[in-house]
Amino acid sequence: MRSVHDHLQACLAAVGQLPPLAVQLPDAVGCILAEDVRAPSDLPVTDLAALDGYAVRSGDVAAADRGPVRLRVMDELRAGDTDLVHLVDGAAVRLASGAPLPVGADAVVPLEATDQGLAVVTVLRAVVARENVRPRAVDVRSGDVVLAAGERVGARQEALLAAVGRARVSVHPKPRVVIVSVGDELLEPGRPAEAGQVYDANGHALATGVQDAGAVAFRVSAVPDRRPELRELLEDQLVRADLLITTGGLSANDTVRDVVGPMGAVRFDNVAIEPGRRFGVGHVGEEPTTPVFCLPGDPLAVQVAHEAFVRPALRAMAGYTDLFRPSVPADATVGWDSPAGARQFVPVRILGSPAGGYRCEPVGEVGAGTLSSLAHANALAVVPEDVTRVAPGDRVTCLILDA
Amino acid sequence: MRSVHDHLQACLAAVGQLPPLAVQLPDAVGCILAEDVRAPSDLPVTDLAALDGYAVRSGDVAAADRGPVRLRVMDELRAGDTDLVHLVDGAAVRLASGAPLPVGADAVVPLEATDQGLAVVTVLRAVVARENVRPRAVDVRSGDVVLAAGERVGARQEALLAAVGRARVSVHPKPRVVIVSVGDELLEPGRPAEAGQVYDANGHALATGVQDAGAVAFRVSAVPDRRPELRELLEDQLVRADLLITTGGLSANDTVRDVVGPMGAVRFDNVAIEPGRRFGVGHVGEEPTTPVFCLPGDPLAVQVAHEAFVRPALRAMAGYTDLFRPSVPADATVGWDSPAGARQFVPVRILGSPAGGYRCEPVGEVGAGTLSSLAHANALAVVPEDVTRVAPGDRVTCLILDA
Repeated sequence: MRSVHDHLQACLAAVGQLPPLAVQLPDAVGCILAEDVRAPSDLPVTDLAALDGYAVRSGDVAAADRGPVRLRVMDELRAGDTDLVHLVDGAAVRLASGAPLPVGADAVVPLEATDQGLAVVTVLRAVVARENVRPRAVDVRSGDVVLAAGERVGARQEALLAAVGRARVSVHPKPRVVIVSVGDELLEPGRPAEAGQVYDANGHALATGVQDAGAVAFRVSAVPDRRPELRELLEDQLVRADLLITTGGLSANDTVRDVVGPMGAVRFDNVAIEPGRRFGVGHVGEEPTTPVFCLPGDPLAVQVAHEAFVRPALRAMAGYTDLFRPSVPADATVGWDSPAGARQFVPVRILGSPAGGYRCEPVGEVGAGTLSSLAHANALAVVPEDVTRVAPGDRVTCLILDA
Repeated sequence: MRSVHDHLQACLAAVGQLPPLAVQLPDAVGCILAEDVRAPSDLPVTDLAALDGYAVRSGDVAAADRGPVRLRVMDELRAGDTDLVHLVDGAAVRLASGAPLPVGADAVVPLEATDQGLAVVTVLRAVVARENVRPRAVDVRSGDVVLAAGERVGARQEALLAAVGRARVSVHPKPRVVIVSVGDELLEPGRPAEAGQVYDANGHALATGVQDAGAVAFRVSAVPDRRPELRELLEDQLVRADLLITTGGLSANDTVRDVVGPMGAVRFDNVAIEPGRRFGVGHVGEEPTTPVFCLPGDPLAVQVAHEAFVRPALRAMAGYTDLFRPSVPADATVGWDSPAGARQFVPVRILGSPAGGYRCEPVGEVGAGTLSSLAHANALAVVPEDVTRVAPGDRVTCLILDA
């Protein structure tokens, strides 16, 4: 029996971080930056009007608080105007919000503080220098590192990258994961099942789990337990896979071991995990080889294996340093047994609050391994290898799953 | 000036929940169920072997704890075998994990508790009735509601739906959102910018924000501030939009009001929000009309408006009852001013822990409205309308943004 710790280390060692790739900005969303992104120019590139109004020299309107000041309107500028305009003494330029400040102006009088005149404007209050001006480079200076390698690109980071003009950035790309469910008993949902047949839940759930982890999933329809067909299919899939995952085909006739083993260097072990328990990890195909994870066929075991092994490995491939889901300590509301020597993952619902502390309540019968229990859980309680009994009130670490 | 509360209510009233639609299972991921899903059959559909071994009558091996018991092996079954096999007295059937239990058998002896014989097997220990049997319907009974209307379909729920054979489910579909940035000054990232030109950050960031909220975004490249072209473009886009969003074109020459207003019933207001401030909300096009939100052009204001108005509306359209991001109370590490009568959103970093309490620290200069501050923030502090000064140590509600 191999420990969960050792098998996870083998999975992480098998994958490694994907090398950087320059991608278009929308494709960088959800990825980790592989470069320090420097601003190629100031943001904004010039002083801009912060609101609709009139560009002035503040000195020309200093007396406006004591009585109206009239200025000639020499021009009108909108956002996007690139003409270089020079403001002369005693004049104003009407500006739309976002328009560039004319040379010689040092402030903007808001529309509401004027009579909104077209040829001549009457200014009703004074402004101080820089008032209502959005200064050049207030957001970013040319050459600044706006985002550092290792940061994740979400909407807010994308906005900044776009604003400094970056159309391409270097990221750790999203791992491409090919998922193959193996088994004669497997049937696509929607078709009538005979006794002994089982709908393929693994392919569907893994594809979504892989995508939730920030990777790209290619799900291959369930394939029968026949060696030549399986080998051909896997070889065909390698071209688009940064990681190959199989489920099932590991018990009794050992189809997957017989097919995947000779394709490369793959070790198969019983892992001390419940639900479990037979797993493979290694590399297949020609150089550069492709990492492969072989998972059991039981659908609950596959989803637990996704949390325990696959998701951390995908995040490592994608350049994350934080590989694991958040966890909280929670007190068990009821007791249950746990197998000696194995790490047990139990679907639970977390109750309580940060202030009052958390409790965890198993969903369904512990050990029954049902999909309905996991579908209604919001966390997995993790019982260590040396614990054989969780008593009511015992504190257990719980991995928080997505809502 | 319209309040944030009133404008949000107008946005929610303009959209409404999208009507249910039956979709293929993979397309249901991320959606809210619009039906109570009942299992069409038991899961599993028959008693199955829980591990590799031999199906027996437990009575036939009751003496095995006192000495080896030999049984004739009458057949071998694998997962997926649908032949009806009847176990006769004094015999065993070799089973792979997941294979259907023969009629007449009531337990499975694990391989390890036998000599693994092919024609005759020697059983080395007794089993009790139901031992190592995964009973029919242990997970779900035919007719049970496995998931109720209102639940979200993630990986774990998808696994259960697949396992009970559902290939299609009725959900509230993902809203399709067309995003149009308006402005002569706007330029796609990657091209050289002249003074006065601005890269379109809004289209990119909104598209990602909309997708993060569980909707589908169609981003139209930035369009110039010209009425006939804008009208034609918007009319063309209506066919694929459950919601139309414009940014910019609301100040000075009011292009968007002049174009969008006559296309339907849209009201434009200054909303008491900082950053802000000019917004439109209503419907355009022929029956069934399409809701439209008009946002300002300033990129920080757009991202704040996304959090304050767009995201809650998208979640309402998609059938969520929980429309808002989680928030925490946090103590300000420094003080800052807030405009009288307006709700202020300030990019902050949350520090601390659930146990020790949270603090919030503004990123960058408050009120400067920079994209870099938001890109490095992990929350938005929300200062109420009647507060004009946040003092160090004051408790502020903070919306937690995505990591």
